[in-house]
Amino acid sequence: MRGKEVESLWEEVREVSLGNSVDRLHSRPTPIQFLRDFVSQNKPCIISNAISHWPGLSLWPAPSYLSTALSSSLVSLHLTPDGYADALVPHPLHPSLCFVSAHVQPTPFPQALNLICQPPNHLVAYLQQQNDCFRTEYRELESDCDGHIPWASEALGCLPEAVNLWIGNHLSQTSFHKDHYENLYAVVSGEKHFLLLPPTDVHRMYIREYPAARYSYSEESGEFRLELEEPVRYVPWSSVNPYPATGNEEQERSKFPLYFNGPKPFEVTVKAGEVLYLPSMWFHHVRQRPGDGGYTIAVNYWYDMQFDIKYAYFNFLQSLPYQSTDDPTIPESEWNLRNLRDHENCCLPST
Amino acid sequence: MRGKEVESLWEEVREVSLGNSVDRLHSRPTPIQFLRDFVSQNKPCIISNAISHWPGLSLWPAPSYLSTALSSSLVSLHLTPDGYADALVPHPLHPSLCFVSAHVQPTPFPQALNLICQPPNHLVAYLQQQNDCFRTEYRELESDCDGHIPWASEALGCLPEAVNLWIGNHLSQTSFHKDHYENLYAVVSGEKHFLLLPPTDVHRMYIREYPAARYSYSEESGEFRLELEEPVRYVPWSSVNPYPATGNEEQERSKFPLYFNGPKPFEVTVKAGEVLYLPSMWFHHVRQRPGDGGYTIAVNYWYDMQFDIKYAYFNFLQSLPYQSTDDPTIPESEWNLRNLRDHENCCLPST
Repeated sequence: MRGKEVESLWEEVREVSLGNSVDRLHSRPTPIQFLRDFVSQNKPCIISNAISHWPGLSLWPAPSYLSTALSSSLVSLHLTPDGYADALVPHPLHPSLCFVSAHVQPTPFPQALNLICQPPNHLVAYLQQQNDCFRTEYRELESDCDGHIPWASEALGCLPEAVNLWIGNHLSQTSFHKDHYENLYAVVSGEKHFLLLPPTDVHRMYIREYPAARYSYSEESGEFRLELEEPVRYVPWSSVNPYPATGNEEQERSKFPLYFNGPKPFEVTVKAGEVLYLPSMWFHHVRQRPGDGGYTIAVNYWYDMQFDIKYAYFNFLQSLPYQSTDDPTIPESEWNLRNLRDHENCCLPST
Repeated sequence: MRGKEVESLWEEVREVSLGNSVDRLHSRPTPIQFLRDFVSQNKPCIISNAISHWPGLSLWPAPSYLSTALSSSLVSLHLTPDGYADALVPHPLHPSLCFVSAHVQPTPFPQALNLICQPPNHLVAYLQQQNDCFRTEYRELESDCDGHIPWASEALGCLPEAVNLWIGNHLSQTSFHKDHYENLYAVVSGEKHFLLLPPTDVHRMYIREYPAARYSYSEESGEFRLELEEPVRYVPWSSVNPYPATGNEEQERSKFPLYFNGPKPFEVTVKAGEVLYLPSMWFHHVRQRPGDGGYTIAVNYWYDMQFDIKYAYFNFLQSLPYQSTDDPTIPESEWNLRNLRDHENCCLPST
């Protein structure tokens, strides 16, 4: 396949369906409207005033409230040296990259929150356990918000498969990836900054396989060690960092021209009180800005997605090697290290 | 593109979504169920007992009722020598094919019905004007059925763009094509026999461009003349006849191997009282079996479709030339006479 056809696809999905920016609704949609205008079309939207009735909206921005409510809770705290977990870092042995997960430390909640609000120099703490943690580790907060998003549950015909709580500071980022869930993402304090790309743009993500590794943190030395998984396990992950370090921009641009020179990703700011509908299979990169309490707090609801014709089309598209229109001498196989079907190598959240 | 990837797509859409046969519902779905389980997934279904309340279900099978109700109506009767309209026939000048439309004759309804019920030797009559005819030519029948399908209208968020009546006999067929509408197809008398293929199977339809022609029928001589449109107009149409004449089978199989050797089309019989949801962009071929009155009668509702990511994926797929896996020497361009985008050359119904 030449790049020409796939570039037309990137353009056409924007032209016929997505437009230039993410739709904004000023109140919660009806289930039918949500299903017809967004889920069925695999199209994101932001909903304002959808969680105005949550007590958490006024309670959770106060660290003292949270620390009291969760005074005896042990929570899974994710620790990294720099805020990049589930991200690519230099391989410890080769001149290449590996996919690293955070060190996960069971921590009393008040201590965890302190580490987030007053970050020490050598580590970044993030409460982001994605295993339905809101209904397990944080069950003391359950009366502060809804256990599901009623209009979404009715539209999707089920209750959420997982509900997760996220508490972090400005240092934590989530690198580009996709989830095999319909995602309702409610921000309760601070802001989340998303970059979004539709599944049609998969070749622009430069998904490659990286060996899995994990940080191991020693409280005693205050140091992180990077440990490769044994036996080696490969994780397909996007190679693109949309915010390269100063001085690195040109190099990154030339390594990932389809990302940097193609259509701009949708930039979305989700503020406290707003909900983002992040459709299944959309690539997303997330940064955050803390609220007054010194942290960003969000709850997300993962609903099962439909494995339908859209999913089959996506796997087909991903199976095609991309051949540059500019340089037809690049062999087709170049961008297709392994010809894998999507569901054989998707990065499902650890549940 | 090699054929391997697209063949995997044909398989996967069946494996993850469509299964081996078309779903059957035993009563009308709720709007949300219809939208979530079928429209959003671009997946057909048959609904039994959905039009039990229509007076037409008992009234229309009697020719005398119809002829009385429409005694003073002039209707658009479609005449062909053989029952094949909007179909491929030998070109009058070259050793090739052209796309022929029926001769359309304004005819008093009782006379039209007679021609359908007692077909003369030299012509086949079919009432199938697809320009919202039910609400214009047949308005005397409007109290005999619903003006729209309420649960579909609520799901799709609009009323039908067109409602058409179809009255024909066993001699009339509709060749493989697709429509850019969501289609609710209600059979009131007799049966309709559909062959269905999902949009993912577009390469199996061998869509090529054929010069448009029209039959001209002379009542005096009782003969049809085939007239090419001038200036010449090309119509993209499927080259596949799924029911080749006896003796021609092997030749057709070898001309259209992707159709004949690929996954079987979904075969669906829609009986009187049943409704078929025929999703937008699905290829369909239709034959019919008359009811007791000597004719098949159906009403179909065309609703606007969403031009969303599914539509963009379809256009992308269609833009890719198919290259046989068996014979990589066939040039890619072979199956892609013109690199046209779908909406520039779709065959919209004449409205």
